Amino acid sequence: MFDRPIPRDENDQLNWLRLIRSANLGPVSFWKLMEQFETAEAVLDALPSLSKCRKKEIAVAKPSSVAREVDELLSLGGTLIDYGHDDYPPLLRQLEDAPPVLMALGRTQLLKKRSIAIVGARNASANGLMHARDFASALGQQGFLITSGLARGIDAAAHEGALHSGTAALVGGGIDVVYPRSNQLLYDKIREAGVIASEMPLGCQPQARHFPRRNRLVSGMSRGVLVIEASLRSGSMITARLAQEQGRETMAIPGNPVDPRSKGCNQLIKSGAALIESPDDILEQLHRPFENQEPPGTKTVSSDKRNRSGTSGLNAEPKPTAETEIVNIPVCPGSLSDLLGAEPVAVDDLARQSGIPLAELNSRLMELELEGTIERVPGNRVIKIVSGGKGGLF
Amino acid sequence: MFDRPIPRDENDQLNWLRLIRSANLGPVSFWKLMEQFETAEAVLDALPSLSKCRKKEIAVAKPSSVAREVDELLSLGGTLIDYGHDDYPPLLRQLEDAPPVLMALGRTQLLKKRSIAIVGARNASANGLMHARDFASALGQQGFLITSGLARGIDAAAHEGALHSGTAALVGGGIDVVYPRSNQLLYDKIREAGVIASEMPLGCQPQARHFPRRNRLVSGMSRGVLVIEASLRSGSMITARLAQEQGRETMAIPGNPVDPRSKGCNQLIKSGAALIESPDDILEQLHRPFENQEPPGTKTVSSDKRNRSGTSGLNAEPKPTAETEIVNIPVCPGSLSDLLGAEPVAVDDLARQSGIPLAELNSRLMELELEGTIERVPGNRVIKIVSGGKGGLF
Repeated sequence: MFDRPIPRDENDQLNWLRLIRSANLGPVSFWKLMEQFETAEAVLDALPSLSKCRKKEIAVAKPSSVAREVDELLSLGGTLIDYGHDDYPPLLRQLEDAPPVLMALGRTQLLKKRSIAIVGARNASANGLMHARDFASALGQQGFLITSGLARGIDAAAHEGALHSGTAALVGGGIDVVYPRSNQLLYDKIREAGVIASEMPLGCQPQARHFPRRNRLVSGMSRGVLVIEASLRSGSMITARLAQEQGRETMAIPGNPVDPRSKGCNQLIKSGAALIESPDDILEQLHRPFENQEPPGTKTVSSDKRNRSGTSGLNAEPKPTAETEIVNIPVCPGSLSDLLGAEPVAVDDLARQSGIPLAELNSRLMELELEGTIERVPGNRVIKIVSGGKGGLF
Repeated sequence: MFDRPIPRDENDQLNWLRLIRSANLGPVSFWKLMEQFETAEAVLDALPSLSKCRKKEIAVAKPSSVAREVDELLSLGGTLIDYGHDDYPPLLRQLEDAPPVLMALGRTQLLKKRSIAIVGARNASANGLMHARDFASALGQQGFLITSGLARGIDAAAHEGALHSGTAALVGGGIDVVYPRSNQLLYDKIREAGVIASEMPLGCQPQARHFPRRNRLVSGMSRGVLVIEASLRSGSMITARLAQEQGRETMAIPGNPVDPRSKGCNQLIKSGAALIESPDDILEQLHRPFENQEPPGTKTVSSDKRNRSGTSGLNAEPKPTAETEIVNIPVCPGSLSDLLGAEPVAVDDLARQSGIPLAELNSRLMELELEGTIERVPGNRVIKIVSGGKGGLF
């Protein structure tokens, strides 16, 4: 079981929010810092010193700013759902990059239900839309929450099909930002009958690079992901890949190869996703006893790991051996950045390739993360954040 | 390797043809009898005595009748391709129910080429027909013979696509019978540029029950079977099942579940067939080193097995144990017939369930086969021949 800490009181909860709202600090680093310093307050105190050679100050969120955000949330009738909240999605807790805090509008208790994600193309066919509605409705009647991303096309149809039984829209921006605008009416209905949730701050406008991050929540809180129509390079394929990494069932409805919208689904089936023709196929697929096993890359924070002696870095990693010290040549931050790319790179590989001792490397990576240059992703890997050029995916 | 006998001379070849043309004697029994008696002549001599309690004579083909058939074949410009003929399809030799003799029209040397079968719905969609033509053409250019059954729809389109590179039509009746009549033009083209083959006698009109038998040749001579559009209960599904039993690759092009013609293909993919989107997928599928392994149910006739002491039955099966003799209660042929059905039943299971000793059972089964009541199928199994009611399948 997980023994990550949970906020002790309202004040602690605000500190959690301050920490995760601090510029560029992602969930993976949030939990790493919590593991090391135990409380959000202690992390906040330590944060400025973590980056010794920084020119500018780290943008730590001010207490007044997060208090204002919480007030605004309450005035919207929303709920702050921290990692310890009763309504926090149970499967989401397993993730290495579980969001420390979610904000939600609507019937938040739905988030506790066992869930199936239905995602797919925005420019879906009539058949695709029909499948999305029908599957969502049938699976809803079987007691499943239907989770999706409130995009046009398949996502919207899936939400519609499950309005009566329960649906969760995980949005890419703040929960108060309706995107796309054309889904305003659906947004209103879900806010009334379902639940809208996000880890992003209120008012945050969704950007292309937010969507993969949001997608991990859609798959992560679900037992399986059904993909209905998807081109090869699409956000749905990213969700499916994340689902596989998270140990979730991936399922797809096939299509004739002549339709480009079937390419993604067929590709998923080729690489092991279940071929789905009816809601019964999904129930059969999920019928196998669902083990609450840790998906690959998941790490838990255990209390016995917290009091570590090493303080030279963010992780109590094994001390560099004599051998790694021999190859330890000075490397300027520039060359470290060259080793990073849009594809995840393991921190261990980075250490080997750069010759930087692990403790020092982790310290530098923390700087790069706080600068907004990199992002930590599950499996102790990092990616370089590339602005623009990704819009076509979403 | 196989060491089934091959005809020693033209006279022996005629005896082979007499034996396989004898009423209701199928290939499995042909090889069993050859195993026991070594030559077709010896089997023909023994045939009347094999059924001791028969009322009527067994309809053994007359020498004049098969001589006339061969004359007719030659006058059509056809070729008699016995099991030992150079052009006999190599993979077909592996089958337990390999046809002892084929008749063929056209470029018989094509039958030696490595082959892929393309089969599917008669009422195919425009996309399905396009796929059949395109895949046949592309695979033909890669050096594959394209084998199919000359049916309307997918079969016809596959033959058309491979007319220039090489195609084999395995027909359900005699090679001189054009069925369906609407494919007369295509039949003529294949006879000219490809090859038409059958194990059925010249002039034989195809009947519903002939088609599964023909389908085993389509799959059996091919390295893999590609199914393009097929309803769940269709001849293409039978071909795919036979292909699996024969150890051939099964491959299918998926389709949207809304189209009933995609049900068969999707079902095949669910049960392990490769999902195919392009000819390259097929080449990749077949690229794995093809082992000339014996598919399940295949038996070879080895010379050292031929001289057996037991003569009480067709098989030198182990003698009944004391236990089976205790439960050996007399069973009238009627009750044996009750145990048989349209689905294959293992002879061993029949022995257990009927209490008839195996040697006696095999003798009775031979009678039933010669009567036309049952048919032997690979894997030492038998099926009851049900007339009519199967037309919908083909």
